[in-house]
Amino acid sequence: MSTSSYADGAAYVRGRFVPIAEATIPVTDWGFTRSDVVYDVVHVVKNGFFRLDDHLDRFEHSMQQRRIRPPEDRAAIEAILHRCVALSGLSDAYVAMVASRGRPRVAGSRRPADCDNHLIAYALPWIDVIPKDVQERGAHIWLASTPRVPDASVDPTVKNYQWSDLTSGLLEAHDEGFDTAVLFDAQGFLTEGPGFNVFIVKDGKVSTPDRGSLHGITRKSVLELCAELGIEAAVEPIPGTDIEHADEVFLATTAGGVMPASRIGGRILGNDRPGPISLKLKQAYWARHDEGWHRTPVRPLEAAE
Amino acid sequence: MSTSSYADGAAYVRGRFVPIAEATIPVTDWGFTRSDVVYDVVHVVKNGFFRLDDHLDRFEHSMQQRRIRPPEDRAAIEAILHRCVALSGLSDAYVAMVASRGRPRVAGSRRPADCDNHLIAYALPWIDVIPKDVQERGAHIWLASTPRVPDASVDPTVKNYQWSDLTSGLLEAHDEGFDTAVLFDAQGFLTEGPGFNVFIVKDGKVSTPDRGSLHGITRKSVLELCAELGIEAAVEPIPGTDIEHADEVFLATTAGGVMPASRIGGRILGNDRPGPISLKLKQAYWARHDEGWHRTPVRPLEAAE
Repeated sequence: MSTSSYADGAAYVRGRFVPIAEATIPVTDWGFTRSDVVYDVVHVVKNGFFRLDDHLDRFEHSMQQRRIRPPEDRAAIEAILHRCVALSGLSDAYVAMVASRGRPRVAGSRRPADCDNHLIAYALPWIDVIPKDVQERGAHIWLASTPRVPDASVDPTVKNYQWSDLTSGLLEAHDEGFDTAVLFDAQGFLTEGPGFNVFIVKDGKVSTPDRGSLHGITRKSVLELCAELGIEAAVEPIPGTDIEHADEVFLATTAGGVMPASRIGGRILGNDRPGPISLKLKQAYWARHDEGWHRTPVRPLEAAE
Repeated sequence: MSTSSYADGAAYVRGRFVPIAEATIPVTDWGFTRSDVVYDVVHVVKNGFFRLDDHLDRFEHSMQQRRIRPPEDRAAIEAILHRCVALSGLSDAYVAMVASRGRPRVAGSRRPADCDNHLIAYALPWIDVIPKDVQERGAHIWLASTPRVPDASVDPTVKNYQWSDLTSGLLEAHDEGFDTAVLFDAQGFLTEGPGFNVFIVKDGKVSTPDRGSLHGITRKSVLELCAELGIEAAVEPIPGTDIEHADEVFLATTAGGVMPASRIGGRILGNDRPGPISLKLKQAYWARHDEGWHRTPVRPLEAAE
């Protein structure tokens, strides 16, 4: 079997594996028309998933919170992710799992419980949230004026596609010539940005927000690396003024790892380059990948196929 | 040309007209993966659009606010809507227009400005937000504990698919045996529900929230009808306690018109049936349809086709 048609990415939709170009959902799917959908993204580096179990745990938490339950169980989902990567032939990949509300079984119903929930999965060539050259010089981060949606309205620990506030922050950032943005909640506390958690470093201590944020797997890795490296770290409320007075700032995401910043709003950090603790954590994060930390090798396609 | 394949609905996607069953978007479209999309819905009754210009005005406002601009101009969009309805052969229809961010022209870009925005449209058989039998007895409305997303985070006058808070309210309502829910903002003021505006009636005066709500076209129609009928009406802040002490409550939406309620939370309104002012407005709303109020006849398919 040729896998050439999967070179741009391989997907699983409606129970079938297809090239990514053929992976679609109906325009009437509530995953689209109500953004009634949860997802997760795990990365593959050098043919190994990173922290696959953590991503599957979080995906299950998200599905449970929104009462979305596709027919595939956890073992089936895991096998589908492996197969998407293997079909794509990619050694480095961005691998998505998506659970959508779907459409009502009963024509005309507007009840979520009447819908056929379904799973979508796909492996794509790796794309960093922040381009590599920008990561080298350090990201320029805008302090968005759009407030983050409150946790009570939309739980940020349930990974979702409702990015309007984050996209507003991104549009602000691009208008001002910045790479990306971080948002604050209505009380002025730091939250997160479009696709990443944020960390600040002050007097040698690393902090990340306790609110308005996804419980990121890279964020978790950073906290573990801090413990290993003897760097003080905390998950805590961070008033907006603290990021403006930080010694260093860095971002953390599955699609890019640890990404240092060099400018925050109008302020230049240090010597306008990534700071030393940020770089140390970035280096450790990738070094631990090479050592096989939390690694699950991608299963090859069966010989029979 | 046979239109039989369009009987379940007709759609326009990627520049082509297709049966609704073939109308899809890529799973990687940002309209899905970031809910970076705006839409509007107009209804057709007896082969006539209702307030089509008002819906097109609002759709243009939504697109402008989110900087989404498909290649089709207003006249083209209008012609596409007419053609979807004509192809479907439906005399009563629910007609959607959707503008999605699309996908980046530049591989790997994460910038909204790099995307090819695109238009989706479709006509479906009419579906009321509240089933007709429920409308007859009056809707049972749950007072949701989930707070509405604040206007500052996501502008509710930009019609969007980010329904998580509304869906949470709906799940609460169904758990409690109610038909649907209304939400309150963090300050306790009444906002709207999943797919409709809400009105209260107290001592003969009709009120609807000035915040946390879409500027509904049916809401606008109700306010105009109140003026015609000599009923006092206001758009104003409505504290949560006011809906609990209302004489009547009704909902307003394109997909159902004026829909009276008979129960609010644990409270039974009047004689557990729709109230007199609600019914008067409902009757006037449909009577004015029959008189051709704000009506645009659906253009027939060309004879040549």
